Amino acid sequence: MAVRVGVIGAGLMGSTHVRLLSDRVAGAEVVAVSDALPGQAERVAAECGVPVIHAAGEELIRDPEVDAVVIASPATTHAAFVRACLDAGKPVLCEKPLAETAEACRELVEAEVAAGRRLVQVGFMRRYDPGFADLKLRLDDGVVGPAVLVRCVHRNAQVAPGYSSEMLITESVVHEIDIVRWLLGEELARVTVHAPRPTSLAAEGVRDPQLVVLETESGVLVDVEISVNVRYGYDIRCEVVGETGTLALAPPVTVEVRRDGRHEVAVPGFYRDRFAAAYVEELRSWVGTVADGRPGGPSAWDGYAAAAVCEAGVASLHGGETVDVVLRPRPDLYAPGELIGQR
Amino acid sequence: MAVRVGVIGAGLMGSTHVRLLSDRVAGAEVVAVSDALPGQAERVAAECGVPVIHAAGEELIRDPEVDAVVIASPATTHAAFVRACLDAGKPVLCEKPLAETAEACRELVEAEVAAGRRLVQVGFMRRYDPGFADLKLRLDDGVVGPAVLVRCVHRNAQVAPGYSSEMLITESVVHEIDIVRWLLGEELARVTVHAPRPTSLAAEGVRDPQLVVLETESGVLVDVEISVNVRYGYDIRCEVVGETGTLALAPPVTVEVRRDGRHEVAVPGFYRDRFAAAYVEELRSWVGTVADGRPGGPSAWDGYAAAAVCEAGVASLHGGETVDVVLRPRPDLYAPGELIGQR
Amino acid sequence: MAVRVGVIGAGLMGSTHVRLLSDRVAGAEVVAVSDALPGQAERVAAECGVPVIHAAGEELIRDPEVDAVVIASPATTHAAFVRACLDAGKPVLCEKPLAETAEACRELVEAEVAAGRRLVQVGFMRRYDPGFADLKLRLDDGVVGPAVLVRCVHRNAQVAPGYSSEMLITESVVHEIDIVRWLLGEELARVTVHAPRPTSLAAEGVRDPQLVVLETESGVLVDVEISVNVRYGYDIRCEVVGETGTLALAPPVTVEVRRDGRHEVAVPGFYRDRFAAAYVEELRSWVGTVADGRPGGPSAWDGYAAAAVCEAGVASLHGGETVDVVLRPRPDLYAPGELIGQR
Amino acid sequence: MAVRVGVIGAGLMGSTHVRLLSDRVAGAEVVAVSDALPGQAERVAAECGVPVIHAAGEELIRDPEVDAVVIASPATTHAAFVRACLDAGKPVLCEKPLAETAEACRELVEAEVAAGRRLVQVGFMRRYDPGFADLKLRLDDGVVGPAVLVRCVHRNAQVAPGYSSEMLITESVVHEIDIVRWLLGEELARVTVHAPRPTSLAAEGVRDPQLVVLETESGVLVDVEISVNVRYGYDIRCEVVGETGTLALAPPVTVEVRRDGRHEVAVPGFYRDRFAAAYVEELRSWVGTVADGRPGGPSAWDGYAAAAVCEAGVASLHGGETVDVVLRPRPDLYAPGELIGQR
Repeated sequence: MAVRVGVIGAGLMGSTHVRLLSDRVAGAEVVAVSDALPGQAERVAAECGVPVIHAAGEELIRDPEVDAVVIASPATTHAAFVRACLDAGKPVLCEKPLAETAEACRELVEAEVAAGRRLVQVGFMRRYDPGFADLKLRLDDGVVGPAVLVRCVHRNAQVAPGYSSEMLITESVVHEIDIVRWLLGEELARVTVHAPRPTSLAAEGVRDPQLVVLETESGVLVDVEISVNVRYGYDIRCEVVGETGTLALAPPVTVEVRRDGRHEVAVPGFYRDRFAAAYVEELRSWVGTVADGRPGGPSAWDGYAAAAVCEAGVASLHGGETVDVVLRPRPDLYAPGELIGQR
Repeated sequence: MAVRVGVIGAGLMGSTHVRLLSDRVAGAEVVAVSDALPGQAERVAAECGVPVIHAAGEELIRDPEVDAVVIASPATTHAAFVRACLDAGKPVLCEKPLAETAEACRELVEAEVAAGRRLVQVGFMRRYDPGFADLKLRLDDGVVGPAVLVRCVHRNAQVAPGYSSEMLITESVVHEIDIVRWLLGEELARVTVHAPRPTSLAAEGVRDPQLVVLETESGVLVDVEISVNVRYGYDIRCEVVGETGTLALAPPVTVEVRRDGRHEVAVPGFYRDRFAAAYVEELRSWVGTVADGRPGGPSAWDGYAAAAVCEAGVASLHGGETVDVVLRPRPDLYAPGELIGQR
Repeated sequence: MAVRVGVIGAGLMGSTHVRLLSDRVAGAEVVAVSDALPGQAERVAAECGVPVIHAAGEELIRDPEVDAVVIASPATTHAAFVRACLDAGKPVLCEKPLAETAEACRELVEAEVAAGRRLVQVGFMRRYDPGFADLKLRLDDGVVGPAVLVRCVHRNAQVAPGYSSEMLITESVVHEIDIVRWLLGEELARVTVHAPRPTSLAAEGVRDPQLVVLETESGVLVDVEISVNVRYGYDIRCEVVGETGTLALAPPVTVEVRRDGRHEVAVPGFYRDRFAAAYVEELRSWVGTVADGRPGGPSAWDGYAAAAVCEAGVASLHGGETVDVVLRPRPDLYAPGELIGQR
Repeated sequence: MAVRVGVIGAGLMGSTHVRLLSDRVAGAEVVAVSDALPGQAERVAAECGVPVIHAAGEELIRDPEVDAVVIASPATTHAAFVRACLDAGKPVLCEKPLAETAEACRELVEAEVAAGRRLVQVGFMRRYDPGFADLKLRLDDGVVGPAVLVRCVHRNAQVAPGYSSEMLITESVVHEIDIVRWLLGEELARVTVHAPRPTSLAAEGVRDPQLVVLETESGVLVDVEISVNVRYGYDIRCEVVGETGTLALAPPVTVEVRRDGRHEVAVPGFYRDRFAAAYVEELRSWVGTVADGRPGGPSAWDGYAAAAVCEAGVASLHGGETVDVVLRPRPDLYAPGELIGQR
């Protein structure tokens, strides 16, 4: 009766998914795993009791024992694996990005539309964070009136070597792009990137921080501060300024400490600590949609729209001007107001 | 492979446990349910797909398809069901209280000691709250030095009719009694109850609020304010004052709202909202201990010790004096420093 | 036109008063200062431009150029100086305590009653703290209904050598005794002191911390945790639990810092930092009452009542039992609801 | 010995200054007041005991009994009154703006330079707010490393009719322009104004909110959200993001209230409530500088620089592009690192 899941990719993200599916998600069973690197899949399978190892992702997708697929392999492989799942008619949860370009995302959207039913969910896990979920609930309840501004802060203590100026947008701000589209229920139409003098802690040549200013179709202004070398911790903030009040994400805190002349709470160090509950909820919700056959969660369209905004953002970063976002019309398959999240 | 659980009692608490075990606990399967009231068990079984309904708890305990038992029936039935589980050699999670008197608890302790292995866990779910768990972690890490005081606040918005002066101690403060024993790793030795003029919102004759002052064997002072008609919400606080600093539980908050001239966060209305995560963790942890055969969590001894402190507290409430807690020596089966909680 | 003030005592407290009166209080002029220690008065006078130095406090009180007197000399001298001010018909602001015993306070109350008008203000400066003042305002406005409990915390980072177990009550808790009488507008009737195992940081033989449980005439329960070696800072809290909500003092904070994995605010180190604004307001308010001839602020009666509660508290500390507070009837000169504070 | 102050303008701001100088500033005496509207000066003089009323500001400035002048008349009159003070060699505290255009400010700067000594202070009172003062102190102490970003929020509950799109910059953001120059100790070099769809609560045609993005000479990015119809209160925030941490202004709070299912603190309704202490400190500090002849505080240069940034901001608002700020070289009279504020 349990949903039988196959996981492609057994690196950090993939192995975490295997573990969470095994230990924290009722109604799911990981039945197969695969990884391009020899030994990786074996290790995870041994640790979590996964019975089958496939040499290749395509093989795992074809395995008749696999009901649904999680893609956590490198980004370059996402588009092909998603397409194979569509071809096989199997539900798939694909880590972001859906594909490497907006154009490639668009092709997957078309393929899903051609298939005639929703099979793809994209790994924008923040929608499953209790804070963001409550924020949306209250916004939709009209607690502060219609949104006028959305003020976002996204700060990382540090990033891996090779994290480029463009990745601040495509890897980091992409989360705010998705969450804001979801919170407001409308598309983003314009982007301006301000990139001042970098912090001395940024790698040579990297434009860190950036202030990304977005505007929605209806004219709501959104700004995202992205800073990826702040050292003090991982700090995510979001305040929706409505016409009569504001809603702000509260940082999750468990214990307050007083010592040495200060009253302090901990700031999480990594996104995994900050969003640990969201990763579990994402998997739990996705397994639920697979089990009852009613898809929800971030769609292929959401993956496409986020990619299009990122591309406009990168163009603005390079050119210094405001850049319009170009989006195809939304197919009927992707209803704007569909219920997602809290199942 | 999953742990097959039988749940005795299908009222509010029992049906919640059935639902959480089914939806939120990987590795568990509810295979049987029973309730003394006709129809109750049937409703829950239908809703959650539980295959078997037993007419009586004793029958459920004897069912060979049942690996482990949850007791969520009325308090008067706990002792007999726990003893039946001990007789059957089955792990049992019993909602508090373990039994109706300290003496009856002690007899269960002796029965478990005679059985020679730990089978009983008592439903003190606060130990599984992320806040209390982090607080203990940091206290044990020595972040603020050894504890000198523990300051607790326990406030309910309101209580059901019939909630008596004694129940403020036996039903409410009992949670602090357990959590403080667990945080400090030692027994409580003395109790004084201060019961001033009641709030006008208390039921006729009920001593609400009370200030319960406890002292541990080593001399740490603990006080618990218990107020059960504060109207504004359910408010639980705990601050451990160490020699060089303090650790305080942070209230769980997801969204901050600014409107109408104020900056506000919600206070939960009920204990189930406040401790929702703890109930899930409690079950998850208990199922884990059953699966791997290594018991943990609040023991029968913890149930006995809490009952003994409550009895001393009620005596102080009636007599107005400080009352000593009388405890038998702790059997070796219940190691003082055993690992519990975060599995 | 300015009020001409003479200050008796030029130690830490007295010299601070001279400085504040000179620099921060419009409408006041310090015209004379005296101190028993040679050189002290001279130093302060030179620094702040005080024209006259008197060899003795009595002489300063008699000086016709002095309109009003501040007493900041050692506690043993207070009663005699206050009486001399009453004899001279001069308004006086006397640092706490008014006198060394409740009985000596009572004699001053009688002397003032005999004189027929209010001349004495006692230095309970907390009533002038913006936090306590707002708290009283809202309590009186009925924002949370009538008070049921008052929960106070009074923690010092450390104390001077020689600070005895009794001084925790007479020097520290005395502030809560006054503030609670003022907040609630009624007298304290009973005291119980719980003195557990002391912190290892307390001086040999000193009972630190203590939990002082008070009850008002109408039955409101008040508790004060007094800890004088907490190391981490000076921490003052007060929460009034009303029938439908609570009011709590907010710690004064100016800047929030995020660094090194934490989000922190400073805890003040000393009472002078915490109550700096209150000391200024106290002097400003007192000078205003002197200028317009309408006395206000903590009265001789307040000094007497606080002393009586302290004596009961010390008796409870020594005897371990609840002790009643014995108070003479309040003379009409001291109206219960008189306006004080924020002029 | 007291500084004898004349106040030009007896409207809301002027009368407040008269009252604060009389009641809250030791060492100051208001000796004269004037106002263009008949009756205004008379009312204030009667209320506060000001002995002399002048028919015109010029007359007040020439009065030999007036040592120093406060200008609180309409903005159109500032430049002429300031120049008259310079001609008379009298210290002057001029409410913002120093003059109506950057060019007119520049002429006053030249006049002061020609006079050879600092006589002019501009009414940027935020520098005297305890929060901003502490923030600067810690920034200068290097607590979070060099500044990389400054994030400002400036929200008004509502504004008077006639408050135009340009006034959001020249009347509101001008405060952040000054405070950021002061915090960072450098000039602002570029401005971009983002003006999205206005809130429906804005007056017809008014661009509210705006996001004003500034860049300093050294490349620090500063953004200011200005929203003047947020209804919920007056909300001022400032966070300096340093290379290793951040410093943020804490909202001033005195009492925390719990009621009706929420935990709340008040948001001030008006800038006068929020910055009440700053207005007093500003006057106290200015009177101190006058008394000892060592000028400090926001200078004529600061008034000029703020005006120049505002003009660039208005140009960006109109044109939609980034606009450079044009500033003359700073005369030596205005040392960059001069001590200001907390005397």
